[in-house]
Amino acid sequence: MTVEHLDSGEILSQATAQGDRVYLCGLTASDLTQDIKGQTQEVLDKIDDRLAKMGTDKSKLLSANIWLDDLRRKPEMNEVWKAWLGDLARPARACVGAQLELNVQVEIMVVAAR
Amino acid sequence: MTVEHLDSGEILSQATAQGDRVYLCGLTASDLTQDIKGQTQEVLDKIDDRLAKMGTDKSKLLSANIWLDDLRRKPEMNEVWKAWLGDLARPARACVGAQLELNVQVEIMVVAAR
Amino acid sequence: MTVEHLDSGEILSQATAQGDRVYLCGLTASDLTQDIKGQTQEVLDKIDDRLAKMGTDKSKLLSANIWLDDLRRKPEMNEVWKAWLGDLARPARACVGAQLELNVQVEIMVVAAR
Repeated sequence: MTVEHLDSGEILSQATAQGDRVYLCGLTASDLTQDIKGQTQEVLDKIDDRLAKMGTDKSKLLSANIWLDDLRRKPEMNEVWKAWLGDLARPARACVGAQLELNVQVEIMVVAAR
Repeated sequence: MTVEHLDSGEILSQATAQGDRVYLCGLTASDLTQDIKGQTQEVLDKIDDRLAKMGTDKSKLLSANIWLDDLRRKPEMNEVWKAWLGDLARPARACVGAQLELNVQVEIMVVAAR
Repeated sequence: MTVEHLDSGEILSQATAQGDRVYLCGLTASDLTQDIKGQTQEVLDKIDDRLAKMGTDKSKLLSANIWLDDLRRKPEMNEVWKAWLGDLARPARACVGAQLELNVQVEIMVVAAR
């Protein structure tokens, strides 16, 4: 079965898909002057965009990996996460602390159905 | 194809599935007074439970991500892991150190067939 | 649907597959005296080997998780990564810093189609 790629660049594709499964890259905010809530919102907006381009949306998320620069910021990230998902059923998720690029406070990578 | 959810809560679902693929959330022990071996056993018991509720079991694990608060504890975690799998074929696995919630020594997230 | 395993050992399998989806374990270099570029090349050679044994190749990568002992080494790892992929479309990818085993500078875990 063929593999589809979205915006394959020098290093990575923004998303790939095979059949009814979509894999997004680890996304971070572009405006890194934002606090973690602002960064999370920008990341989730990017996820919406990539999912749409792959023919799916956040109602079909299967799993999410979230990395935080400082795990103590998780409640703030979660506020934005919950608002984003609204009344939708949640994906399976793991959230751990990790070393991220300078000034990056949150990175999210998801797998979705379509 | 429809996405199934197990115990979708405020933040995450305990598991999701699409077709013959099951995704569990990152699981941690509830009793955090336990040492890493006790925590690992409780996490693996939770994995058995979530897999059963999704119509599968540990013989069908595809991959596992394990995060340890202190990677030097890996041999102790592995003892419990090996006993849990017994004679079953092993999943693909990665185990790295990461910042986890206070007193959490191990977190495990798996993908399984069903 | 049956799960296939490649070299199931005491702890993990080198790869598993279900249908047209292949999961590799987190791979690290065996010769840990190498610098990060050498380690990355050895890891990518191992990935080629495991993919071949599972009936696929790097042109069908879906996603990759990369962990670096020191995220500042990412540009050096990326040089080897880009050369390895050549003109192929890239997988979705995330790369974060994490605690790895002693002297391990890079660990990579991929999912591929076949």
